Amino acid sequence: MRPIGYVKSPYKEPRDVPRGLGAQHEAEGMLELLPEFAEGLADIEGFSHLYVLWLFDRSQGFELTANPPSDNRPHGVFATRSPLRPNPIGLTTVELLRRDGVRLHVRGVDMLDATPILDIKPYLSSIAPEKLRRGWLAEAEARAK
Amino acid sequence: MRPIGYVKSPYKEPRDVPRGLGAQHEAEGMLELLPEFAEGLADIEGFSHLYVLWLFDRSQGFELTANPPSDNRPHGVFATRSPLRPNPIGLTTVELLRRDGVRLHVRGVDMLDATPILDIKPYLSSIAPEKLRRGWLAEAEARAK
Repeated sequence: MRPIGYVKSPYKEPRDVPRGLGAQHEAEGMLELLPEFAEGLADIEGFSHLYVLWLFDRSQGFELTANPPSDNRPHGVFATRSPLRPNPIGLTTVELLRRDGVRLHVRGVDMLDATPILDIKPYLSSIAPEKLRRGWLAEAEARAK
Repeated sequence: MRPIGYVKSPYKEPRDVPRGLGAQHEAEGMLELLPEFAEGLADIEGFSHLYVLWLFDRSQGFELTANPPSDNRPHGVFATRSPLRPNPIGLTTVELLRRDGVRLHVRGVDMLDATPILDIKPYLSSIAPEKLRRGWLAEAEARAK
């Protein structure tokens, strides 16, 4: 695994990232690819949304039980977005605003500044909201109302 | 990076996996976690859909320009789901049918049998279809009509 580029984000420290119930990820940032990967971006500007796979490079180790900020109950790590995962890979959906060479200007970053990017994929289809069940998160939201 | 488990899939060879325009991924399969990661699955059965991150373990090397089976034109690898990526990580959304201990029965596998699983994350929200642009894929679909 090698970085294909780095995230430019307004968030310098973990505490800067909005978290907990109702947290919005509307921050603009940039995915800056290394020049040797520029060719791999051909035609990406046709997609409105992208998946970004990235490395939790400032997390150490993992915990199988996580305590997410959106709930006061613990949950299995694979039922959460905890950074303390057996393989420290993050996944974020961003909106592609525009491309400027190897720089993708995007909305929706929740990564820290200088986070290594592992992969970018096109977002091709959605699960219809009426088919989606959101487990403990929906329950925590209901309790918070 | 270490496998947290392996996929059980009806697809034994790359040619078995449905591909190209209109390919449906409705196959049922199983995500079988290693016993030492069982605790990380707590509460996962509340989610209807999961992201599975996995390793393209039968691909070698990468190509920055890909020739996807859904189009007769080449595209940058990051605008495709090509297995020949700088970091060979696959991403699949599956529907969770039921859990049986460390075994997650799912619908929508497009991985080969025995594919190593790197991570599982809850699918929490969708981009509304009316906000989605699907670039070259939408164009290829329109041309095929």
